[in-house]
Amino acid sequence: MSRRISQSTVRRLSHYLRALEGFEGEGGGTVSSEELASRGQTTAAQVRKDLSHFGSFGKRGLGYNVEELRDRLKAILGVDRVWRVALIGAGRIGSALFEYPDFKERGYECVVVLDNDPEKVGVKWGETTIRDVHELEAVITDERIDLVVLAIPATAAQEIAERAVSVGIKGVLNFAPVQINVPAHVPVEDVNLVMELEALSFQITRRGATE
Amino acid sequence: MSRRISQSTVRRLSHYLRALEGFEGEGGGTVSSEELASRGQTTAAQVRKDLSHFGSFGKRGLGYNVEELRDRLKAILGVDRVWRVALIGAGRIGSALFEYPDFKERGYECVVVLDNDPEKVGVKWGETTIRDVHELEAVITDERIDLVVLAIPATAAQEIAERAVSVGIKGVLNFAPVQINVPAHVPVEDVNLVMELEALSFQITRRGATE
Repeated sequence: MSRRISQSTVRRLSHYLRALEGFEGEGGGTVSSEELASRGQTTAAQVRKDLSHFGSFGKRGLGYNVEELRDRLKAILGVDRVWRVALIGAGRIGSALFEYPDFKERGYECVVVLDNDPEKVGVKWGETTIRDVHELEAVITDERIDLVVLAIPATAAQEIAERAVSVGIKGVLNFAPVQINVPAHVPVEDVNLVMELEALSFQITRRGATE
Repeated sequence: MSRRISQSTVRRLSHYLRALEGFEGEGGGTVSSEELASRGQTTAAQVRKDLSHFGSFGKRGLGYNVEELRDRLKAILGVDRVWRVALIGAGRIGSALFEYPDFKERGYECVVVLDNDPEKVGVKWGETTIRDVHELEAVITDERIDLVVLAIPATAAQEIAERAVSVGIKGVLNFAPVQINVPAHVPVEDVNLVMELEALSFQITRRGATE
């Protein structure tokens, strides 16, 4: 279990899980790697290779049992449990994330929101009262927070991440447009919206150049 | 120029560009692949390999000229021009994106916002009046829109994407939590916020299992 799994493999596992949940809604039963591949926009060989990292699944020629594979993928992706999340930053992106319905559905529960703006601290978002970011360490400890979501300016991200790591945070989802450096045992996922647009303009530009 | 460039290579090019802009602020001159690697959290060999896809850069033993490499990377990533963007969906995520300062700075100009909610249509965001999504095709044509950003529910995404493609949109940045199918010549970048969290919980779960 120590081989490195690429980011794109993990992304495809997420797609397979969604596909399986779709098949389940359609009645369940068994599914072939070809069917999974077509929903995940990949190939049957890739499906088999991706799954082979995690043990043996399905029976040759019989396909996979939908519910069983779904449960295995949930366990692999760690979404068979509840993750307690602290959202740091109650600005526009923070408020959009807080309202995002799919997080809670998938077990990511935003139990606390923090900000450094005195006008926001104490404000209620639904049942959640915005807390002062000065209390970060105490809040993470008392609320048994697993993950922090950084929806704060680039200038603040490194310091806040270090403080969260110092009290044992397990992972960071970073929306600040800056690379943060934390110890290797703490995974960081960056969502850099400008880089997503750059990936798009790269592809368009490249196509233009090769046509 | 027809080799396939991986998503992670493109992502690293974006990081190198940011690193070069940092070096430029510090005085410019030349930079080694080692220095670029340390800012991009990769290796010098990877930097040289990534750049080799796009021709020859720098001189052996002398490093890269900061300004020259920056300009080449901007051209490669297509950020040496202005991209005209239509934001579709004036909800929370849409409004967070609209206010995101880094987009405009990088040349992604949100020239129009569309929504299907009669209460939002006609509302002004700064200088921009929210238009009715029924006008999508006309707006894309008249405003010479290059890219659409979909900040709409999953149920609407496919139809809207098809309509945008039918009038010649060049690329789609999709925040709707669904895979959209468009012709292969139209690149799509998906930002699926739940999948980002799944990538994080995957890594944490895996570490727990291997420790």
